[in-house]
Parts: sequence; structure tokens; C-alpha cells
Amino acid sequence: MRIVPLGGLGEIGMNCMAVECDGRIAVVDCGVLFPNESLGVDLIAPDLSWLRERREQVGAVFLTHGHEDHLGALPFLLREVPVPVYGTRFTLALLRPRLDEAGVRADLREVRPGDVRPAGDASPIAAEFFSVTHSIPDACGLALSTPQGTLLHSGDFKIDPAPVRGPGMDLGRIEALGRKGVRLLLSDSTNAEREGTSLSESQVGPALEQAFELARGRVFVACFASNVHRLQQIVDAARAFGRRVAFLGRSMEANARLAQELGYLELPGWMPVSPEEARTLPPRELCVLTTGTQGEPRSALARLARGEHPDLAVSPGDLVVLSSRFIPGNEIAIGQVVNELCRRGAEVAYEGLAPLHVSGHAQADEQRRLIRLARPAHFVPIHGEYRHLSRHAAHAAAEGVAGRDVLVDGQVLELADAGVRVLDEPVATGRVYTDRDALLGADIGALVVRDRRLLAETGLCIAVLAIERTTGAVVRGPELFARGVAGFEGAEEELRAEILAGLGDLSPKARTDPAEVQEAVRLAVRRFFRRTTGKKPPVLPVVLEL
Amino acid sequence: MRIVPLGGLGEIGMNCMAVECDGRIAVVDCGVLFPNESLGVDLIAPDLSWLRERREQVGAVFLTHGHEDHLGALPFLLREVPVPVYGTRFTLALLRPRLDEAGVRADLREVRPGDVRPAGDASPIAAEFFSVTHSIPDACGLALSTPQGTLLHSGDFKIDPAPVRGPGMDLGRIEALGRKGVRLLLSDSTNAEREGTSLSESQVGPALEQAFELARGRVFVACFASNVHRLQQIVDAARAFGRRVAFLGRSMEANARLAQELGYLELPGWMPVSPEEARTLPPRELCVLTTGTQGEPRSALARLARGEHPDLAVSPGDLVVLSSRFIPGNEIAIGQVVNELCRRGAEVAYEGLAPLHVSGHAQADEQRRLIRLARPAHFVPIHGEYRHLSRHAAHAAAEGVAGRDVLVDGQVLELADAGVRVLDEPVATGRVYTDRDALLGADIGALVVRDRRLLAETGLCIAVLAIERTTGAVVRGPELFARGVAGFEGAEEELRAEILAGLGDLSPKARTDPAEVQEAVRLAVRRFFRRTTGKKPPVLPVVLEL
Repeated sequence: MRIVPLGGLGEIGMNCMAVECDGRIAVVDCGVLFPNESLGVDLIAPDLSWLRERREQVGAVFLTHGHEDHLGALPFLLREVPVPVYGTRFTLALLRPRLDEAGVRADLREVRPGDVRPAGDASPIAAEFFSVTHSIPDACGLALSTPQGTLLHSGDFKIDPAPVRGPGMDLGRIEALGRKGVRLLLSDSTNAEREGTSLSESQVGPALEQAFELARGRVFVACFASNVHRLQQIVDAARAFGRRVAFLGRSMEANARLAQELGYLELPGWMPVSPEEARTLPPRELCVLTTGTQGEPRSALARLARGEHPDLAVSPGDLVVLSSRFIPGNEIAIGQVVNELCRRGAEVAYEGLAPLHVSGHAQADEQRRLIRLARPAHFVPIHGEYRHLSRHAAHAAAEGVAGRDVLVDGQVLELADAGVRVLDEPVATGRVYTDRDALLGADIGALVVRDRRLLAETGLCIAVLAIERTTGAVVRGPELFARGVAGFEGAEEELRAEILAGLGDLSPKARTDPAEVQEAVRLAVRRFFRRTTGKKPPVLPVVLEL
Repeated sequence: MRIVPLGGLGEIGMNCMAVECDGRIAVVDCGVLFPNESLGVDLIAPDLSWLRERREQVGAVFLTHGHEDHLGALPFLLREVPVPVYGTRFTLALLRPRLDEAGVRADLREVRPGDVRPAGDASPIAAEFFSVTHSIPDACGLALSTPQGTLLHSGDFKIDPAPVRGPGMDLGRIEALGRKGVRLLLSDSTNAEREGTSLSESQVGPALEQAFELARGRVFVACFASNVHRLQQIVDAARAFGRRVAFLGRSMEANARLAQELGYLELPGWMPVSPEEARTLPPRELCVLTTGTQGEPRSALARLARGEHPDLAVSPGDLVVLSSRFIPGNEIAIGQVVNELCRRGAEVAYEGLAPLHVSGHAQADEQRRLIRLARPAHFVPIHGEYRHLSRHAAHAAAEGVAGRDVLVDGQVLELADAGVRVLDEPVATGRVYTDRDALLGADIGALVVRDRRLLAETGLCIAVLAIERTTGAVVRGPELFARGVAGFEGAEEELRAEILAGLGDLSPKARTDPAEVQEAVRLAVRRFFRRTTGKKPPVLPVVLEL
């Protein structure tokens, strides 16, 4: 049996793992990664070629939960590998709009914790779903039964002793599985570098109430729209202080509605108010739940910060709570939003002394506890960058787990009767850079992204000229253009002169050779800029022969 | 009297403040800002036009300490406004190489805490230097005596009760000044959002020793090269564990040598070893101090992580300590270095449970304490983004300071007998984007930077053609080029056909109008890409008439 990670091992995001056994493949999750650089890339999906090439073998997709980094790329997969998808209720509810957007139809099959489902017909692999606690409702881990023993996949988890709602983490089932024998444990490594235990989700409620207590104006709370238990606690706090709730931001409005319809979120009858109604309420009676925890420029919170929201404004005395984490890479964007909110006279509060946010991922003590309960023969850390994976493996070592491997995407783990080993040959993996506005899943391409990165550093200078074929005389141009080139403005005359001088230095023969002319133009331009600015920009010389 | 902030109020970096009184100007600090985006910009300096336009009035520059965000732009200023520069010994020692690099000569005058110096001849402004504790030796604050009373400028400070070395913060002098009367306090806001008190620098030593205790291989410690007291503690820990110290990285080697020469850093005779010697030492006997705390790609630590350092390598079992802070915006770069180090089998430790690093900036309780000692009539927070400034002003309000203003760069505070007010008209401020490789201080230009940002998002498509003047017939081309454009690869034939078809649709008259032809080309290209990729890239159409 082989474990083939296609994403999520070596980066936090785009989780996708294939389990292959006797010619049958089960896929666990298929998510996307959100990039940090501003290179016109909205989403990064894992390269799913390995699965596409084996499409007849794929039996099913099992989803652990509804976060985008676990199901955001599933439409791309299902479009070419149409297999049943098993997931819990809220998970499938979050998937459906993505499928609709993509125009992909799928065979979605709802499960509940305790259900066991096969990965296709007559399959050697079956998945049992069990409840875990995470920052989204209906999150599960998987116990995969296979001819090579039980694989325990933690999903994303924390061990929350006091969840706001739901069954809690099924430690009993995990312990029972551990006693029967777990061959391999695959566990969430995100917070491996944080010692101790994550705080319970239910501790956010009291912290929110403390913040609400001091608020004299409006209260805005930004959080992840899919964290329904957080929404519930915010709604409860608002209610306790006589504030009506409004939802702001596309995904917040959509998720809140969905959660209400499915019965996951309870709102009193006098909530929510629409954004337009919210504008008329006295500030002390309003609590706005908004998107934008990561400083996303088009989010509701960022628009409020810039004073560009059509329905509402942030005024002096208002309170803004960021009930969220600052994801690495987003600090500057978040900082800008916070600064702008402060400029508008708002007070901005976030996780710090008070638990206005708690993590959805297990910290080191919780990770160790899961390892002790599962008692696996072998351990492979998942869901993390290399440093998280290696630290998690160290925790397993400290717990006495004999077999441990730190894999990254593409590295295959083989489980056989003889033992467990990492195969020498990795499988092909990669990243597909894509764009929400673009055609679905259209790959921008790694080379294009790299070129954009280079353009960002240096700009580009373009010189166009036409030469007479037999004499090399310059008939038109050089016409000069530049984008992002320092020192170009106002220097075109001199630059033109430099180019002509450079061409004048060519031999008669070279002067009629377009390649030589191009090179002479390039050198002249770079020489000019090196002299005037100290930098040599990339040059695109275009020579038309007449 | 007017306080004119040219940089440092609204951003952390490029600190530069002018104090103007009776036609005489004193400048406090003149630093640079390090950008986060990869747009080919190494440094951002404040736009110093306001000072250049008043160059005869400028009497002197007073430097609080030697960090780049306080003196990195001084060569640009001195080149056009050659005035005396007053600073402490280590401060001037760090400035000299920058002046040499720039080929700028300057009148540097060394001071010690307690010295009082005028801002030029017959000047109404004089500055008294007093000791503060910060993350660099010889850091000072300033008490500026003026006809409008005493201005207390904190410099960058923390209140360290147990500094590793040096006189400590002169709280006695501050208190005496407070009793006599401080008209205006300008104080470091960096850590205003952090409650409590920063840990003492001397607490890092024991934390380092704890880390060294468990180290079985080499130890690499990355820290800011100018933090000499940190270097001393690392050297002392290395010594205690029988490890010889090597300095790696240009600024580390230079600063360590400078600090030793000036007597600020004490090394036993058998240290340091050269990088080449270090290679031959048994791993347990080596401690390497290295640059690269912010994941800078060309730093020694990043090169070690990539396995590209000519002298040394990181091996399994080695320990890497990041004795530093993760400056917002650098998390991804630092994370990449950490991941690569983990891949090489190193253990990576940083500030977390143990104080392997402490901040050089006062936290809220220390800020309040300074306010209480200084008892200013008026308060203006400095050295922070808006949120830090506004939070610091809130601390002052809580301490009962009646007059408070939150200013940002360009906003002028006027102190007169009648009172203190913010002027309606701000002065011109701005940013100069520059590059270490480029000619000194050459301004890349905000528009160029903006263009690079746009190029990074979309790329650029170029279409060149030559048309016959009278008929509009296409004589050459369209020749097509693209950088960073998704979907261009392999599509040139179709794109060419689309352009020609678009031109075919033009009226005979339009066909001979270069402007119309350009527009038709642009539309055709964008139409093509919208159809094939869903995105419309920017197009540069070049039409030569023959």
C-alpha cells in the first residue's frame, strides 16, 4: 500500500493525499493554497496529474472538513475524475457553491461520524469518519481500514474539552482503535512548535463579552466566516449587550445564512439586520460581523477601513475586534487595515492578553496526547511546513513511536508486510497557479509567475526599430518604451542617441544582421542606464527588416 | 517653534524630525526604511526637500543612536546640507562607513551623555544628550532647550534595569527635567500595544546558556550585528561552553571588529576564529555568530540554509538560534530559512518560551513610566505606525497628560506662548525609493514602483507592426512578445490571426491612422486573451509607419 501526498506536506495549504492499495485509490481532501505575493495569482492548487493519469483507479474522495485548504481544488479534480465524494453535512454544504461556480456536477454523499464508506466498489480501502474538534463544525478524522492495517488520519484537529457545540472529539474511538492496533498515524502538525495546549473555543465568548462591556459605539467583529461556533459566541455576546447583529461581506453573509438554514447557528428573531438597516441603528445597538481578518483589500473590513463601504462607516469610539489569527505573510496587509481603522478613531482589539481568538490546531501537548492514544507503529506528520513536520516527528520520538518518517509532497511511503519505507523515486507533484476571474483552473504557469516576479524587480525597456535590409540603415525608430524602469522618464532623447551611436559602431556586415543589431541595441540601452542610474534593466529589442 | 516630522510618524523606519525656531533648524536623526515588497527597491529614504529648501537655516544634526532607521539617509542629507553632526562614539562609528560608501565628507562631532550642543551658531536650540537603554550601545535621548521650553525626545528606548554594559537609562536626569518643566515629550511608540514591561537584555544570557547546554553539534546564533550587548552575551555563553566564536556575514564581521576596537566587545584572545578555521574545528567547539535574522536571501544564514556558504555547512545535530524578532513582513522569508535549516537536520530555536531575544523598545508600562517622570505639558508619540501612535497617546491620556496630538509625517506642531496647535497646512513629505547598487540616492520614483507592482500582477504583452503609410497595409509583423502573460506560450499564431482580423475590420481611413491601428491591436489582443484565459493583460502596441 502506498501513501502519496500531493499537497500539504511542506506547506500549509493545498492538502491532498492519495492512499493506493491493490490498484484502488482513495483521495483524502483536495484543497488550495492562498499565495502571499501580489503576482496576480489568487489560488494555488496541487498538480493533480498523478491522479488524472490513474483516474480509473480512484474510488472515492473523503473530505475531513469544509475549509478551502481541504476542498478548494476538488472541482478541478472532479471535472476529470468524477468519483463519489463523502463528507459531513456542513462540509458538503460548503463544497456545493464551489462546484456550482465551476459548473461541475458531483456525486456528493453525506456521512455522519461513525459511518464507514468504501473507496469505490469492491475496494480494499474503507474510511470510518470520527468526530474531531476544529475551527469549523462537522470536522472529522478518518480511520482507513486497509489490508496493511489501520491508517489513522487526524484531519485538522485540536482537543477541545469544552466545544461550543457538537459531539466533541471522539477520543474514546481513537483509544479503541489504538488498542486494536494502528499501523500508521498521520497527524496535523500546524502548531507543533507551540508547547502546551490550545485554549478552548468556548473561552472566546467571555473574552468577547469583556470587550463588549467597554464598547461605547458600534462593535465590528471580524472572523473567519466558516467558524460557526465563533459566530455563535459573537451573536450571543451581542445579544447579551442588546446589540443587533448584521453580517457584512459576501462569504460572511453566505455562511451565516447557510449555517442558520442547517441549524448550526441560532439567531434570535430580531437578528440579523440588513446592512442598510444597520446604518440607522444607534451605534450602541449594533454588532457587525465582517470578513477581512487577513487584511484582504476587497474585504468588508478593508473597505470600512478605507471609508469605502456603501452601507456602513467606522466612527470614533467604535470598537473593532479581530477575532482571528495573523496568518504569516499577511501582517503588513492586516497592519494597514488596523492603521486605517485607528485613523478613523476606532479602538482595535485582537488576540493578545485576552483570548479574542483561539487556534483550531492542536499544540504540542495535544499532539502528544493523540499519539499516546493512537499508539501507532508508524508516524508521518502532515499539514505543515518542514519545520512543523520535523518538530512533530520529534514529539513522536519522545513518545516512543519507533517508526517515523518526515515526508514532503511527492515522497511515497510504502507499507508492506515486511515493513514501512520511503520509496526512492518521488512522484511528480507541483503547483497550479490560478485565478478566480480566469477560466476555471486555467494554469497561469510557473514560468509566467517567475517572469512577473522578475518584472517586479526591474521593469522592462522596449526598443523598436526598422532597418533597411541591404544597408542596415535605420529607417524608423528607435521607438522607446518602458514600464517600471527607473531613469527612463525624460531620458528618451539621450537614450535614442546612445542606441544610434552603438549601431554606428557596428561593422557594415553586422549592421545588416538583425541578431547583431538587437544585441547592439540591448547593450547600448543597458550601458546608458548603468551610467545614469547604476542599474541595467532587461531590454527587449525589436528589429524589423525592410 | 515648529516640530516638523519628515519620517517615522506613520511608519516604523526613516525617522527624521526637524525642530525649527527663530529661523534656525535642528534635525533629529535621518534614517531609512526597509521595504517589504520585492520591487527592486533596497531602501526608502524620506523626501528631504523641506530641509534642502531651507539649507541655510539648518544648524546641526543630532543623532540619537546608530541604527539605520536613524542615520541611513544622513549621507543624502549631508551631501546637500553640510552641517555638523553630533552623536555618541558608537553612533558615529556606524555612520562613517555609510559616508565613505557615499563619498560624502562630514563634520562629525563626538559627544557623551551630559554634553550640551547648539544647533548651529547663535542658535536658540541646544541639545543635551542623556543615556537611554536600547538594543545598541551608546543610545541617547535628547533634551532640547528652546525659547518655547524643553522638548524631551526619548530616542528609541526601553527602561532596562540591568543593562549588560554601560550607564543605564538616566532616569534621574529625566526626572529632574520633569520637575523643572517639560513643554513637550516625544516618545518611542513601537511597543505601545504590548502591555507590561520588556525583559532586560541581561536575561538573554541565561536563556542562551540553557540552549547551549543541550547542543551537541555546532551552534549558530543569528542576531542583529549592531546589538553589541547581545554579541557579548553570546560570546560569553560560547566561552562558558568551550566554544570558539566565528563571525559570519559582512555586517557581522565589520561590526564585531569595530566593537572590539572601540572596547565595546570583549573577546578572549583565542577568539574569534576565521570562517576557514571554523570549518576545521570539532562541531562542539564552535559557535558561529551570523547575519540573516530576517531571512535576507543574501545573508550568511540564508546561504547556510541553502547549503551555499563557501566556508561552513549546517549538519544534522547542529543548533541554530534566532536571537531576534520576526519583523512584520519578513515572516515568509524567515520561515523559508527555518524550513531549509530543518531540512538539513538542524534544530532551530527562537524567542518563545525562553527569552532568546528581548525587545529594544519600551512596552506600555515603561512608556507610562517615562511619561510620569517627564510630566510633560504636551505629548506627541513618535516612532510608530498610526496604531502605535494612537495607542501611545491613549497611555498619555490615562496618565493625565492634558495636551496630546497624534501627528503623522508632514503635520506640523506649533508651540507658541499662546499654546500648542497642529497647523492646518502640512509640509511636503514623501518617499525616495532607492537601491544600494544604484547611484547614491538615485530616486527610482514612486511611479516606477507603482508600474512594477502592476507588471507583477498582470505581465505585459507587446505587439509590433509596420504599416504602409498610404494604404495601411501591414508590411511587417505583427511581431509578438510577452513577459509574465498567462496563455501566451504557443498561442502566437492564433493571436497574430486575431490581430490581423481586427485590423481587417477597420475602415480604410482608420487603417492609415496609427492611433486607430494601435487601438485595434490592443482590443484584439485583449479580446483574444479574455476568450482563452479569462484575463485581459496590458498591451503595448507599436505601430511604425512607412
